[in-house]
Amino acid sequence: MAPAGAKKSILERLDAGELVIGDGGFVFALEKRGYVKAGPWTPEAAAEYPEAVRQLHREFLRAGSNVMQTFTFYASDDKLENRGNTQRFTGQQINEAACDLAREVANEGDALVAGGVSQTPSYLSCKSEEDVKAIFKKQIDVFVKKNVDFLIAEYFEHVEEAEWAVQVLKTTGKPVAATLCIGPEGDLNGVSPGECAVRLVKAGAQIVGINCHFDPETCVKTVKLMKEGVEKAGLKAHYMSQPLGFHTPDCNRQGFIDLPEFPFALEPRILTRWDMQKYAREAYNAGIRFIGGCCGFEPYHIRALAEELSPERGFLPAGSEKHGNWGDGLALHTKPWVRARARRDYWETLKPASGRPFCPSMSKPDGWGVTKGHADLMQQREATSKEQLKILFDKANQND
Amino acid sequence: MAPAGAKKSILERLDAGELVIGDGGFVFALEKRGYVKAGPWTPEAAAEYPEAVRQLHREFLRAGSNVMQTFTFYASDDKLENRGNTQRFTGQQINEAACDLAREVANEGDALVAGGVSQTPSYLSCKSEEDVKAIFKKQIDVFVKKNVDFLIAEYFEHVEEAEWAVQVLKTTGKPVAATLCIGPEGDLNGVSPGECAVRLVKAGAQIVGINCHFDPETCVKTVKLMKEGVEKAGLKAHYMSQPLGFHTPDCNRQGFIDLPEFPFALEPRILTRWDMQKYAREAYNAGIRFIGGCCGFEPYHIRALAEELSPERGFLPAGSEKHGNWGDGLALHTKPWVRARARRDYWETLKPASGRPFCPSMSKPDGWGVTKGHADLMQQREATSKEQLKILFDKANQND
Amino acid sequence: MAPAGAKKSILERLDAGELVIGDGGFVFALEKRGYVKAGPWTPEAAAEYPEAVRQLHREFLRAGSNVMQTFTFYASDDKLENRGNTQRFTGQQINEAACDLAREVANEGDALVAGGVSQTPSYLSCKSEEDVKAIFKKQIDVFVKKNVDFLIAEYFEHVEEAEWAVQVLKTTGKPVAATLCIGPEGDLNGVSPGECAVRLVKAGAQIVGINCHFDPETCVKTVKLMKEGVEKAGLKAHYMSQPLGFHTPDCNRQGFIDLPEFPFALEPRILTRWDMQKYAREAYNAGIRFIGGCCGFEPYHIRALAEELSPERGFLPAGSEKHGNWGDGLALHTKPWVRARARRDYWETLKPASGRPFCPSMSKPDGWGVTKGHADLMQQREATSKEQLKILFDKANQND
Amino acid sequence: MAPAGAKKSILERLDAGELVIGDGGFVFALEKRGYVKAGPWTPEAAAEYPEAVRQLHREFLRAGSNVMQTFTFYASDDKLENRGNTQRFTGQQINEAACDLAREVANEGDALVAGGVSQTPSYLSCKSEEDVKAIFKKQIDVFVKKNVDFLIAEYFEHVEEAEWAVQVLKTTGKPVAATLCIGPEGDLNGVSPGECAVRLVKAGAQIVGINCHFDPETCVKTVKLMKEGVEKAGLKAHYMSQPLGFHTPDCNRQGFIDLPEFPFALEPRILTRWDMQKYAREAYNAGIRFIGGCCGFEPYHIRALAEELSPERGFLPAGSEKHGNWGDGLALHTKPWVRARARRDYWETLKPASGRPFCPSMSKPDGWGVTKGHADLMQQREATSKEQLKILFDKANQND
Repeated sequence: MAPAGAKKSILERLDAGELVIGDGGFVFALEKRGYVKAGPWTPEAAAEYPEAVRQLHREFLRAGSNVMQTFTFYASDDKLENRGNTQRFTGQQINEAACDLAREVANEGDALVAGGVSQTPSYLSCKSEEDVKAIFKKQIDVFVKKNVDFLIAEYFEHVEEAEWAVQVLKTTGKPVAATLCIGPEGDLNGVSPGECAVRLVKAGAQIVGINCHFDPETCVKTVKLMKEGVEKAGLKAHYMSQPLGFHTPDCNRQGFIDLPEFPFALEPRILTRWDMQKYAREAYNAGIRFIGGCCGFEPYHIRALAEELSPERGFLPAGSEKHGNWGDGLALHTKPWVRARARRDYWETLKPASGRPFCPSMSKPDGWGVTKGHADLMQQREATSKEQLKILFDKANQND
Repeated sequence: MAPAGAKKSILERLDAGELVIGDGGFVFALEKRGYVKAGPWTPEAAAEYPEAVRQLHREFLRAGSNVMQTFTFYASDDKLENRGNTQRFTGQQINEAACDLAREVANEGDALVAGGVSQTPSYLSCKSEEDVKAIFKKQIDVFVKKNVDFLIAEYFEHVEEAEWAVQVLKTTGKPVAATLCIGPEGDLNGVSPGECAVRLVKAGAQIVGINCHFDPETCVKTVKLMKEGVEKAGLKAHYMSQPLGFHTPDCNRQGFIDLPEFPFALEPRILTRWDMQKYAREAYNAGIRFIGGCCGFEPYHIRALAEELSPERGFLPAGSEKHGNWGDGLALHTKPWVRARARRDYWETLKPASGRPFCPSMSKPDGWGVTKGHADLMQQREATSKEQLKILFDKANQND
Repeated sequence: MAPAGAKKSILERLDAGELVIGDGGFVFALEKRGYVKAGPWTPEAAAEYPEAVRQLHREFLRAGSNVMQTFTFYASDDKLENRGNTQRFTGQQINEAACDLAREVANEGDALVAGGVSQTPSYLSCKSEEDVKAIFKKQIDVFVKKNVDFLIAEYFEHVEEAEWAVQVLKTTGKPVAATLCIGPEGDLNGVSPGECAVRLVKAGAQIVGINCHFDPETCVKTVKLMKEGVEKAGLKAHYMSQPLGFHTPDCNRQGFIDLPEFPFALEPRILTRWDMQKYAREAYNAGIRFIGGCCGFEPYHIRALAEELSPERGFLPAGSEKHGNWGDGLALHTKPWVRARARRDYWETLKPASGRPFCPSMSKPDGWGVTKGHADLMQQREATSKEQLKILFDKANQND
Repeated sequence: MAPAGAKKSILERLDAGELVIGDGGFVFALEKRGYVKAGPWTPEAAAEYPEAVRQLHREFLRAGSNVMQTFTFYASDDKLENRGNTQRFTGQQINEAACDLAREVANEGDALVAGGVSQTPSYLSCKSEEDVKAIFKKQIDVFVKKNVDFLIAEYFEHVEEAEWAVQVLKTTGKPVAATLCIGPEGDLNGVSPGECAVRLVKAGAQIVGINCHFDPETCVKTVKLMKEGVEKAGLKAHYMSQPLGFHTPDCNRQGFIDLPEFPFALEPRILTRWDMQKYAREAYNAGIRFIGGCCGFEPYHIRALAEELSPERGFLPAGSEKHGNWGDGLALHTKPWVRARARRDYWETLKPASGRPFCPSMSKPDGWGVTKGHADLMQQREATSKEQLKILFDKANQND
């Protein structure tokens, strides 16, 4: 295997018109495997259970990912306190361990390491630009020390905070990607996707796009709006999308967190591998060249992206050794009527049943119409108390 | 950690009224992780990618499993030829590697190792009792050599073949469990669940029940019928269930393989953790004391069983360190309306939407009414040819 | 138009192998038109709004019905008191008016008049056989006086009460048909459909079958069981089915009344005309020759039966002047993509969407497990009081 | 009953802030009763089966309608030729008969007669303004002769044609209402609802709004946009809505005609009476004071509007004699668990199941992207030939 330095950088790849396959979402996948706690969603497992994190990196690499994102979501000290981090690792320990794991696995194949930062409790609580930037700076110090290949500012609901992040990331001299978790209606302040993209590019991001919060169809649609905005402004950028692995046609502006099923009953919404192939093709057709996933993406979902785009890339991922193209492994099945499913048109047109006749197909999102600055959104260090929860339950019942 | 010999045996546990939590299905979970090929479904990964198999064992152990089943499904030499096993490991290599992995992880906690055999292509192709028994014997030789703790004959559609398997397993002197993959209508020859159970107990199985092919609700119902049959016959047994992790209300007698979504579009049917808690409770109330899962069960599903039954077991599984009871980890979430979901009645009554308004909630099963002995079911060593597939596709189109 | 006397009787038709098309349900159709009150469901409109009742008879005649059932459902004096009958017509007035309307319209075409009786509050309240028979006798006196062509005992949940009714009807010397509102599980005392049919035939019914409470698929299945029972007993009979015009796959033993949607939210379950053609064909194939409908059937549903069976009958109904076979009237539509729907395979295979993504596809039936004799089912003359309703609402909430 | 002249005019009512309840759709209701042919949808029944048309008028009057629209949809001579009109009534005969029927029933209660014109084949075929206006003029001559109370130009997909209609109607001196069959995206040329409304008001319409093509929710939303446009332009108008009685959340710009279920499989989409009460309240809250329905509205749907708005109107409709408020007639039902449904909160929150687990909840609309002027939309006198249909079927299959 070639040393990391010998690999083409993210910008060399994209500038050359190459496709870059991202990875999937770690917090959801590791929650199901038993290593992340839903609610706090903190990544102390990087230090606490490195073999589990390493294994997931390997599965994504094998599935075709060119990017190992460090498992550093929400890895700032203030967030880590009094959350799932019962073994009390410091933010620095976690960030460093995550960088080492990503690099170890990236070295096993043709992948780059991307250090990631995301939106902060401090911004929601109306802290100053300086305070918020200081938080990003602290994480980035580790990324520089560990010499990641590029940086991603991801999962921002307000473009203003994302701009601040990009400005900090740019100080490293490394390539910078920036993704918002917004839909076609724009960020939570109503800034349109086109304008958001322009502002991110002007702040210095070379790659812009969308991650999380919405399904692939919605994310591709939103990146298209971003691309239109950038081009209309006479600017240039590369585009990326890392959507949910869940169908969310019923989301409103705030995305899947508002769906009543979040986060413990999203199973019926999980995309099939065929849905993923459709997404990969649509993203490609929209001009997106950095195509990956976020929460809900399992390794086989990433493999489906790599398989769909194998004609463009010129090769199949390693993991395809265990996967037949469009189901052709079924030609080896015991039952003849299952062998008859070994064909593209079968899987491409199938409308899969939910097996849940007592459930609806869409939900009404929650969402109390509060945004940054509202008292309900001020973040506190302590877990919500029983009294506070009682008030919330009553409020929820009134909103039903 | 106590040495393996110091652990209570499976029968000591069940005789004492203890609950035994099984593990989940390896072929489906590892297919999604990239290590098993759908269609052949063979377990060469035990030898080829041991770290991936070990990691899955560990996740089930952490989730609360007391049983590590050796990853030896379909691990007979005839099945392994010309299937997914491109590295050409022998059946013996695979079976031995699987035993070693199961034992290594079992030793990390309070789990036993179970060696498993399942239905054979030979039986479907009408080979003799002697021939079929010889196949079981070959796998069992490895299990004896590796000194597994007990044996499971699982995934049989015809009780006659299961009886043969039990008779072979009994020769080892180890405890024997036997599960069929049938529903309330009985085996593929129309033998009722009650009669099937009686025949298995008479053949020597100390534990009988159901695995795979149907959802938890259906499996519990079927085990109840088995229990009624055994008790009516004046016999005694322990009962186990290892159902699918998919909702299958629309199955007919042959189970989920006939559903049009098998195996690549079952996502909308995946059970939530709350569905699993309901299953655990119903299984317990039905008198089942060996409660696990099969295809579709991920580690968090097993953890849900262990959490639901923690009052009876007296402890939570290790993995609950990263999981709040009934969603109470959400009390730490950023958004107040998500914090309001940190309560049992919310998750217990939620009817999760599919996010797929263009899809139905139930499917009509395929199934061409053929069973053992029919020409279409004679097994061949070669992959189905293009000409054979063409005939199948036409036949399928006529049956639509 | 030939005089009534010149028409072939119901038994002459059936004995000759002719198909008899029944009519649809009056109480549901007239409720939607504004002339029947849901809850009491009494037929005082026969006397109060004769033009509305006459019009509905005419529409069914035009749709192809050979039978005009008198609109006399629940038309006994005790039922009429303190129910919807605010103008205080006597039972005799209503029964006579209904006979006159049915005869007037029957004379406009090739239809017979059938006088109908149905289950009584008295039976539910455990009155004696004599008391119950006296109620039937009172209605039948009018039917004899008005010289209806034959009699139908319909809508019985207990075969015993139906036998009593048949015994009374037989005293008139007119042909007698008897239908129960039960499903494949049998009557509310658990008497199987086969045995029910045998008892009705032995009581003197020449035509037996099923009406109301279940969808066509279920009713045809149940009539098949009746036919098997009759034939096994070495008896002979003609068979009829008059099912609901609603899809009810989720019903339990007691039928659609237990569905939460009864009676004011059944709209999404209404059968299309194509569903009706399928029903007509299946009923015909099952050997049923008196094929009609009950609650939910509108005139166009009956026309669909007559159109499907026009090859067997040799003619189309009058109403087909305004209806193209399998949608061929659409060949005249303005939009070309609607003209493209003018074909059988389009409508026969369409899976119509509900337009209700927030609703499920099946419901859990209510039903408190009470039957004849239970205090909750004792009938009272007065409307349920507010105090009684309060108790019921609480009970319902507990059962949710 | 007061003579027609003594009634308050439509504008006197609306100017005084009174609510006006419209009627429902005649072509769909009479198609189900057997008097209108789907495809041509012509109203020759006014002359051919007057008793059926009169009865439907009466049912709407009884349900609370204040407006009897003449049954003159598509009643122009060119449309009538070679369509369903096999008895060859002239356009004049049909228009006159329709006026007489509407007047006769209007005189039985507090209702006005409205003469209606709708979009013409001539406009679609690109005939001149003069030609199109001449067609409207011919129908209006009858309305003037028969002295209808006011005029409605309804069911226009292009605002330009609606303006021409309004200009012709204004020449009579009678009050003029104008409704388009468009959604929030505007007319088929992309003119926004707000601008459409302004143009109709400027053309002389005193009442503007929406009818047909979309469900109540969408229509109310669209009328709101019209109202905003009118108010922003400093103009004044009254507002009306006459939506479909079908749920159509899956429609695109062209409305329900493009749904695959149109017109013969819309049953699962039919609104319940409770859906209708919600619509009435939302329309009222949006400032709409002329509230009625179109295709799919049956008499009980109109009654539901009148019942919901009875507090504002001060009285219940005549038909409520046979209908309990919010289901309270069920307090008289035989079964106690049905009596427990006699309450508002039960019906208001119920999510009715479709009873169709094999069907989806939404459809993808057809629609070939053609509009006025396209060869496929040129209207011909002859029925589409077999050869033409064959081409359409092939085209449809390609679009699937």
